[in-house]
Amino acid sequence: MFVILVYDTAAKRNPKVLKTCRKYLHWTQRSLFQGELTTAQYRALTAALRNVIDPTHDSIVTYTARSPEFVETTTLGVRLGGSDDIL
Amino acid sequence: MFVILVYDTAAKRNPKVLKTCRKYLHWTQRSLFQGELTTAQYRALTAALRNVIDPTHDSIVTYTARSPEFVETTTLGVRLGGSDDIL
Repeated sequence: MFVILVYDTAAKRNPKVLKTCRKYLHWTQRSLFQGELTTAQYRALTAALRNVIDPTHDSIVTYTARSPEFVETTTLGVRLGGSDDIL
Repeated sequence: MFVILVYDTAAKRNPKVLKTCRKYLHWTQRSLFQGELTTAQYRALTAALRNVIDPTHDSIVTYTARSPEFVETTTLGVRLGGSDDIL
């Protein structure tokens, strides 16, 4: 599946959130990761993130699509991360 | 179409970026908007944003899908914005 992940977490937890996201996804922009994962990988990612965040304060939104074909990516301005290698 | 928008823009330009995004989309999380737009509305939004950002410094990534049905949204932790009304 194609996964887009946007995080809004407390600064002190950001390093752990970033480390966890980088294990599974490509950094695309500040607070934004994307990539292709299997269902098992996606479940492992969200399970790992639930262990890292404070669910009463932090927020992570994921958008998943069955395949990257269903989603078109457009960048205005600077292209920061390496999305080209996966789309 | 279903539109996800993530912005990473200089603080001094954020108010204009936010104002432009709010005209067309729902705020979902820090730096994140989503919503359903016609192709014409999407073009108007990106044209307006191009007038507001510094393309040598700022970055805005949009993900578009033909319909919200193609994208599943999941929130870990706090649900900040009003995504429920459109998904």
